Amino acid sequence: MIDGVFAPLARGASGALGLADDAAVFEPPTGIEIVATTDALVAGVHFNHDDPPDLVGRKLLRVSLSDLASMGAEPDAYLLTVALPPDCDESWLETFASGLSEDQEEFKVYLIGGDTVATRGPLLLSVTALGRVPTGQALLRSGASEGDEIWVSGSIGDGALGLLTLQSGVEPQVERDEAWLKERYLLPRPRTALGLALRGLASSCIDVSDGLIADLNHVCEASGVSAVVNLECIPISEPAKALLSDDPKLIRSILGGGDDYELLFTAPSAAHDAVRQAAGTCEESVTRIGEMSAGSGVIVVNGENEKIDIVEKGYTHF
Amino acid sequence: MIDGVFAPLARGASGALGLADDAAVFEPPTGIEIVATTDALVAGVHFNHDDPPDLVGRKLLRVSLSDLASMGAEPDAYLLTVALPPDCDESWLETFASGLSEDQEEFKVYLIGGDTVATRGPLLLSVTALGRVPTGQALLRSGASEGDEIWVSGSIGDGALGLLTLQSGVEPQVERDEAWLKERYLLPRPRTALGLALRGLASSCIDVSDGLIADLNHVCEASGVSAVVNLECIPISEPAKALLSDDPKLIRSILGGGDDYELLFTAPSAAHDAVRQAAGTCEESVTRIGEMSAGSGVIVVNGENEKIDIVEKGYTHF
Repeated sequence: MIDGVFAPLARGASGALGLADDAAVFEPPTGIEIVATTDALVAGVHFNHDDPPDLVGRKLLRVSLSDLASMGAEPDAYLLTVALPPDCDESWLETFASGLSEDQEEFKVYLIGGDTVATRGPLLLSVTALGRVPTGQALLRSGASEGDEIWVSGSIGDGALGLLTLQSGVEPQVERDEAWLKERYLLPRPRTALGLALRGLASSCIDVSDGLIADLNHVCEASGVSAVVNLECIPISEPAKALLSDDPKLIRSILGGGDDYELLFTAPSAAHDAVRQAAGTCEESVTRIGEMSAGSGVIVVNGENEKIDIVEKGYTHF
Repeated sequence: MIDGVFAPLARGASGALGLADDAAVFEPPTGIEIVATTDALVAGVHFNHDDPPDLVGRKLLRVSLSDLASMGAEPDAYLLTVALPPDCDESWLETFASGLSEDQEEFKVYLIGGDTVATRGPLLLSVTALGRVPTGQALLRSGASEGDEIWVSGSIGDGALGLLTLQSGVEPQVERDEAWLKERYLLPRPRTALGLALRGLASSCIDVSDGLIADLNHVCEASGVSAVVNLECIPISEPAKALLSDDPKLIRSILGGGDDYELLFTAPSAAHDAVRQAAGTCEESVTRIGEMSAGSGVIVVNGENEKIDIVEKGYTHF
């Protein structure tokens, strides 16, 4: 059964050996570094039993691809671990695999190995993704300097508001907005092309998975600097703006909710135009939201440059 | 907490970036292929709650290292996924990590990344191990030819009898035997050095995890040949022999029970002396147990060369 469902995902990857050997084998080209990341999703925690299985598969893969993107890495291959509860449904797995298959094509990545085990607990899915960057060009969290501009791709907060919408915590008035926000949560878009385009330009990079403030704080800690973010510069989508105008407190979810999978990066101000151009080339929007400074932690200011009360890792205290 | 427990395991691996970035980065040397494998263990299925946590950590890592060994690959690094139930005990994790640490040193391998998630189900542990082989030298399941000799390292059946001993399914009469068999199950020894030494000699290789007959059948299927195994040549340890003399039916567990993590490999008969010498160099015992032939499936014969009734994938029907 497993063979039938997953072996087709390994077609096209000669090193996967048809998933029929003890391990996968692949030859890295010279002059590159391998980038490796692993992420797990658990039913009832990271996704719901009634989420469309193909979207669960795609999100699983995309969360790892987003990690690769944030390193400036090109995706190559992945290994999949599936822990199956006794009641697991074959048709669920088939639809799950069809989602993986769809995204393999979109992101040019192949299944090269895996393990399937039994569990009495909830379904658990885990991906280890492997990618590559030219040697020395990986984008790290630790490269930000005082004076660097802070940028973010796309819009922030849609993931958190999408989850709230799915949980009926908020109710978008426009049906199209509701569907759009849910999809932003269920099917994040790894900014792979942007990550590649930022090599040599960005001084640091991270993907927004824990929340904008929390992830920016990770960059501050790794780089030994502070960040000043202008709240009014943060790119917010129209559907999110509509919800926010009804309930201004939702700004907490927008800044702290995570699951955006946008790239949050810094670059010297001298690279400002080059960053805009790089983003334009891959048809991604990027917004300058602040500047790195001396010290530590994330400071949020309003349009009048007044500090908004937010402590380090502020989203829990906003 | 997690940082405190796992970050020390990443010391010494610069590419792990202190487990504080989105992904690990490492530069493969030229002229090599990367070998990647993933394995998961679930509490209550693959280990018991009262198994010593350090041994669980070491077995988790060793199962993947055994896959690398069977490919002739040298281990480099691993990524760890831990799904924690609500009642998971910090001291359990600390002892688990101490086991990983011990084996990292023994096998010269480092933690370079991971993910820790919450689950309502049983504790699940998963490792993706990465290793290397010189390009084109990986040992595959598919290279066996008619006439090749079949070899196995160490002794077969101790893993299965160790598990039976732990489950009180058998009772070794000698206390030392009991402890030895249990350890063979709880702490398998990946034959890393032997795997490396067999490069260029073995025509195919697999590690015995499903059981001798089942794994040999995997080689037959991948190579398009059959295997004739002489039952009386199969290396059986003294503790296993003692149990077997009390209950001859235990031969089924010995041939079919798996969890031996010995190397099962084939080599041309012209390489017979070279195989012995290679094994001698790394102080491993190897035993010739049969010969590959035309056709398909595994045939077991006794000392009088009489076929013993065993169908393909025979351990379920032995």
